[in-house]
Amino acid sequence: MPNVPRTALQIRSLVKTNGELELSLAEFEVPKPADGEVLVRVDASPINPSDQGLLFAGADLNTLRASGSVSRPVITAQVPPGALRNMAARLGQAMPTGNEGCGVVVAAGASAAAQALLGKTVAVLGGSMYAQYRAAPVEMCLLLPDGTAPADGASCFINPLTALGMVETMRSEGHHALVHTAAASNLGQMLNRICLADGVPLVNIVRRPEQAALLHEQGAVHVCDSSEPAFEADLVAAIRDTGATLAFDAVGGGRLAGQILNAMEAAIVPPDAPYSRYGSDVHKQVYVYGGLDPRPIELRRRFGFAWGVGGWLLTPFLARTSGEDLVRLRQRVADELTTTFASHYTDQISLLEALDVATLQRCARQATGEKFLLRPQR
Amino acid sequence: MPNVPRTALQIRSLVKTNGELELSLAEFEVPKPADGEVLVRVDASPINPSDQGLLFAGADLNTLRASGSVSRPVITAQVPPGALRNMAARLGQAMPTGNEGCGVVVAAGASAAAQALLGKTVAVLGGSMYAQYRAAPVEMCLLLPDGTAPADGASCFINPLTALGMVETMRSEGHHALVHTAAASNLGQMLNRICLADGVPLVNIVRRPEQAALLHEQGAVHVCDSSEPAFEADLVAAIRDTGATLAFDAVGGGRLAGQILNAMEAAIVPPDAPYSRYGSDVHKQVYVYGGLDPRPIELRRRFGFAWGVGGWLLTPFLARTSGEDLVRLRQRVADELTTTFASHYTDQISLLEALDVATLQRCARQATGEKFLLRPQR
Repeated sequence: MPNVPRTALQIRSLVKTNGELELSLAEFEVPKPADGEVLVRVDASPINPSDQGLLFAGADLNTLRASGSVSRPVITAQVPPGALRNMAARLGQAMPTGNEGCGVVVAAGASAAAQALLGKTVAVLGGSMYAQYRAAPVEMCLLLPDGTAPADGASCFINPLTALGMVETMRSEGHHALVHTAAASNLGQMLNRICLADGVPLVNIVRRPEQAALLHEQGAVHVCDSSEPAFEADLVAAIRDTGATLAFDAVGGGRLAGQILNAMEAAIVPPDAPYSRYGSDVHKQVYVYGGLDPRPIELRRRFGFAWGVGGWLLTPFLARTSGEDLVRLRQRVADELTTTFASHYTDQISLLEALDVATLQRCARQATGEKFLLRPQR
Repeated sequence: MPNVPRTALQIRSLVKTNGELELSLAEFEVPKPADGEVLVRVDASPINPSDQGLLFAGADLNTLRASGSVSRPVITAQVPPGALRNMAARLGQAMPTGNEGCGVVVAAGASAAAQALLGKTVAVLGGSMYAQYRAAPVEMCLLLPDGTAPADGASCFINPLTALGMVETMRSEGHHALVHTAAASNLGQMLNRICLADGVPLVNIVRRPEQAALLHEQGAVHVCDSSEPAFEADLVAAIRDTGATLAFDAVGGGRLAGQILNAMEAAIVPPDAPYSRYGSDVHKQVYVYGGLDPRPIELRRRFGFAWGVGGWLLTPFLARTSGEDLVRLRQRVADELTTTFASHYTDQISLLEALDVATLQRCARQATGEKFLLRPQR
């Protein structure tokens, strides 16, 4: 393997039995790819909300502290006892992190499929991507056009397939329009572009006026700002206009999911409808796919009995999607990578720069609009 | 129509625009049955939790007040502004009440199916049963054995079909055991008997030691008392023993639904399982079919992403059940009316006796074990 070092670095996350979280740079031996594998030089990997659970392990980030050396920084923090109870299965294991990324194939196993990727730019979904190199099975790789910029190829899977999965789920469950929360996120902007392209009515819920302005600039028709006093009335009006009976919620705590169900019910039931204590018979559904708000979900029931709230995740969605549909979805991502599925990063940093107290705190705030891209080759 | 009076009495519930609830005895003209109808002399009708929404309209029962005359009492109470907002569609209408009941067919329309029921004892589901007479389409009637006692035939539909519907739903959605809350209710006792007969593992959740004792006496294997300090651990153990991944919840407010989901997840994930921040991939479901606790539903998420909470009602269940299955379920109820589907009433009262402040307050408390049977012919 010419030009491939014998060892490389990766970010690991360890939770000790005493509740201490330790983030460190670990040196590992660069593996030789097996027959059906390729070795990818990782050029870029995003820090997604879905990475932070494994990375931070629910630690109290006010307790973040730096130690170690300049070239091998160690970051520690304390995991509160409540969160620690959920970490039993990972205690004592220094876990590799990073769900997805992209790079160039610098070595390939013996199989024809692997050899065909040699020298190509690929995106990879599969964990252990906060690393300078990653051996990956061919089927984990999505071929990108030669010369795709690292920042363009880094987020090919999680946000794009999640956004597409929402629209696919909407169709397969018989809904005709969508509500989306945290709608100014990279994912939300993608979903807005997909819905505009596909003619799917979309109600965007945001938390700040500048987020509403951003989405309006991008052509969004319905934007409801939960910081506005008229939020609930605006939401009912937007849901009535679109006929949305399905929402995807990244917030997953507090009253928002219940407010959406109540707004759907209010939009469905005409003011002069005959009284029914059981509410409308139109099924209203909220899928929670994130946990930006760690508080309990609080449902104030004024939405009758035809309702559901449930978890939604990308992986089970992909598992129940046919091979043919998966090829179609992945190909659309590759084809529209710099348009529909464009991502924006506020900072591009090395693995070393990521192990910094201030950077990690900004990262963990999950403020919509702030997004970090790791560049492991820097 | 020999022996049928020209007019009869029924209980009506009126909400005025000023928020006053008024319960009264209304005189109405006894109808002549149409061709496909029968006229039923109502001998018994239960006051179910599902009747109380229409009857009480969310009124504050501390404000109950009696007026009117001895033979025509009027009961009033104040509907709080919050509840009144949901009552817009029924304002100003004095609505007949009472979902189900039984009695004898005293007149029949011209059709052969109607004539065949003349003189027979039938159970009826269809509203307006807190009345001395009720005209009902033949298809609303379930034929009962001649001489069935009014107390035995009064509750043929709502509790029996709800309990059977839970087991049918369990099977059709691929679950193999059940959790049930408010499990010492008439409905809960029925469900326990069905599950024992059909070999379905059942976890009964109750709120008091004497309720646990009652269910144990009736052969229940798993009973968890939420008033016990070890409740959450008991629940995990019972769910692990049974493999239950589906719960039916009559409480519908507070933390119970979330506790059940968390217990299911804890029962599913072995202590030495590899760490996953997304939780198990086993779907865990709670269906809320009641609202004994009016507080918001509060879900504290430690149950991963494979979960759902949703509304469940008898009517939509019946609507999606095939005609063949409905005949099977109704026939089982008729066949096992005094065994599996036996109901118990603490009080049997006339329509006049029901319009009493103390009686209505006891009734509205929905204390498990207390249940009223209206006897309109008294």
